[in-house]
Amino acid sequence: MNYNFSSKIDGVKPSAIREILKMSSDPSVISLAAGNPAPDAFPVKAVEEITAGILREEPILALQYSVTEGYPALRDTLRAFARNRYNVMGEEDDLIVVSGAQQGIDLSCKCLCNEGDTVLCEDPSFVGSLNAFRSYNVNLVGIPVEEDGISIEALEKALREEKNVKMLYVIPNFQNPSGVTMSWEKRKRVYELCCKHGVMILEDNPYGDLRFEGEDIPAIKTLDEEGRVIYCGTFSKILSPGLRVGFAIANRAVLQKLVVAKQCADVHTAILSQLICLRFMNEYDVEAHIGRLCALYRQKSALMLGEMEKHFSDKVRFIRPQGGLFIWCTLPEGSDMVEFCRRATYDYKVAVVPGTAFTAHEEDPTTSFRLNFSTPTDANIVKGIEILGRLTKEFIR
Amino acid sequence: MNYNFSSKIDGVKPSAIREILKMSSDPSVISLAAGNPAPDAFPVKAVEEITAGILREEPILALQYSVTEGYPALRDTLRAFARNRYNVMGEEDDLIVVSGAQQGIDLSCKCLCNEGDTVLCEDPSFVGSLNAFRSYNVNLVGIPVEEDGISIEALEKALREEKNVKMLYVIPNFQNPSGVTMSWEKRKRVYELCCKHGVMILEDNPYGDLRFEGEDIPAIKTLDEEGRVIYCGTFSKILSPGLRVGFAIANRAVLQKLVVAKQCADVHTAILSQLICLRFMNEYDVEAHIGRLCALYRQKSALMLGEMEKHFSDKVRFIRPQGGLFIWCTLPEGSDMVEFCRRATYDYKVAVVPGTAFTAHEEDPTTSFRLNFSTPTDANIVKGIEILGRLTKEFIR
Repeated sequence: MNYNFSSKIDGVKPSAIREILKMSSDPSVISLAAGNPAPDAFPVKAVEEITAGILREEPILALQYSVTEGYPALRDTLRAFARNRYNVMGEEDDLIVVSGAQQGIDLSCKCLCNEGDTVLCEDPSFVGSLNAFRSYNVNLVGIPVEEDGISIEALEKALREEKNVKMLYVIPNFQNPSGVTMSWEKRKRVYELCCKHGVMILEDNPYGDLRFEGEDIPAIKTLDEEGRVIYCGTFSKILSPGLRVGFAIANRAVLQKLVVAKQCADVHTAILSQLICLRFMNEYDVEAHIGRLCALYRQKSALMLGEMEKHFSDKVRFIRPQGGLFIWCTLPEGSDMVEFCRRATYDYKVAVVPGTAFTAHEEDPTTSFRLNFSTPTDANIVKGIEILGRLTKEFIR
Repeated sequence: MNYNFSSKIDGVKPSAIREILKMSSDPSVISLAAGNPAPDAFPVKAVEEITAGILREEPILALQYSVTEGYPALRDTLRAFARNRYNVMGEEDDLIVVSGAQQGIDLSCKCLCNEGDTVLCEDPSFVGSLNAFRSYNVNLVGIPVEEDGISIEALEKALREEKNVKMLYVIPNFQNPSGVTMSWEKRKRVYELCCKHGVMILEDNPYGDLRFEGEDIPAIKTLDEEGRVIYCGTFSKILSPGLRVGFAIANRAVLQKLVVAKQCADVHTAILSQLICLRFMNEYDVEAHIGRLCALYRQKSALMLGEMEKHFSDKVRFIRPQGGLFIWCTLPEGSDMVEFCRRATYDYKVAVVPGTAFTAHEEDPTTSFRLNFSTPTDANIVKGIEILGRLTKEFIR
């Protein structure tokens, strides 16, 4: 039969990245395309002990229905963490546990935007969030990212000219895919401009803890006196993405709507996952664990950057990230980047992600591509970059 | 500040049931209001062993990102189960793992309905599903439920008269809240009528395995030659609701859209939860476990019905369910049912759910209320029904 799907879901194309990731399950392919934590990054022993404890001591709690807002003790712990470590809990704010930050992003858009409303985003930006916005049929407008974060000029112009702008979506720390960190000056300007134009800010901070160079910069949420910022965090990068536990912090009025939307979406987040996160935070040295992760990614990032300097054509520009998981590379203007990525992945068996996967509109021109240093082994980083380097020299004439 | 929320989320009111469930966390209140599996129903020992095995043998798999469609081996096992046990996997169908059947219902509506489209539902029906539909701003039209299922006459009329009907939502087995099971004759008529009018069917079967009386009736999905039925199942009632694992079966074209929508919603379902379900199905005797659950609920349902016959005013009618978790009671026409429930919950400290929580529109008149026999202890069933019986006699003059 012929199906009539909703116009909102018809607006989301299966992500180009998925095709590449399928390729990279081929064991002969070196994948620099993923965004997964390093296998070494998981505190396996701790999770094993914690989970055994939960199922021995409170099995019914771990298996029964729970409340939509999140397990109360986990919310308490996260509230304290958010207040004391990050200063992102305002007086009028509250916190909801969500099934990964992805759900916080999806539900924020659902609660704030009608179809046709405008959402501003960094361009490039995280494809999972862009697809979530598309799935609510909003008008997605990309704002270029510069080396110190979003272009303030372009943001001002969009705020002035676009109709029904409801929300600005930003990843201020070690942005996916660009690796860029937004400067403190720009964070303040972004907040001021959104206040002036009555626009909500959705601040996504999945990588914030993974800084391996430079000084922490406070979140935009720390400036929020108006209840204008929804802040999303996650356990995906510091504990485990497979558990699907994240959180969102927002003014109580916004949070109430998120709770209603979450109840419709999945009732509550898997409670065993929540209990594992709770005990990990309360019974283990989270700071020391994060310190180990930063050391691991510092080493892997330095390795990849060093090999790139050795092997890449000097016509390829790239951004040195201060944290996170990604390095963003740009071929000279006029290069056929999509063909470069195709050849890298299919002919040279080194999978990379074409920049078009991250633009607000697939037809937007870009000559950039994304590399990931967290997932591959050190040996594969060395080998993969050497091969890719050869391609850059052949490809760029 | 003043927030402008989306019109879709503004259309969902926090469920009346939540207020009552808050009441019932008061330990002096006997709650007959929940819909939770009995604590005795959880295979605690099995889950403990399984989980230890997973985290010992494949910890990285259990903690790393996974694929949106669901863990491949779990999908294989569920496909075989769906094909062999229920005959609900057509040649052109495929299966997606979702974060509880609630997510399958939510995403089905998102993929099939534009704002303003009409969704038909049984009236009364499961409030979680109704709220999910409301959260996409659809026009919700209730079709009365009779003792053998949905009114075919009213369904025909709605299909003829309502505009842009996209979907019919039904719970054919031991419906929540009415406990009614749709007859085989009606299932066939429902399928025929939806074919004739080009309407999709969303068949929700959370309680199907919990039949403690009578013979199984095949699902509407078994009739589906057109790819017109999306079938949702869940581990919530047979293993654990806290794990949040369900599945949806649909024609591949529909399933592709569900996958796109799920990727936006939460990337994938918690993989540890999925692995627990997989091993439970493959390594334990699921049939025997389901047999024990049915015996447990047969006993608890019989106990509650017996006590109701002893204590309730004979002016209260109720439906004897052949399975599931609920008994639907109806006060004489003209009774102030909401006041009855208020007095039961607040004055008599026996929490029940007013029928208005389950109607398509809160203002629809009903004198019914819902009782649950799975969650309370046997002692509380006896005590609660005795108290409630006293109230029925005082209340109905």
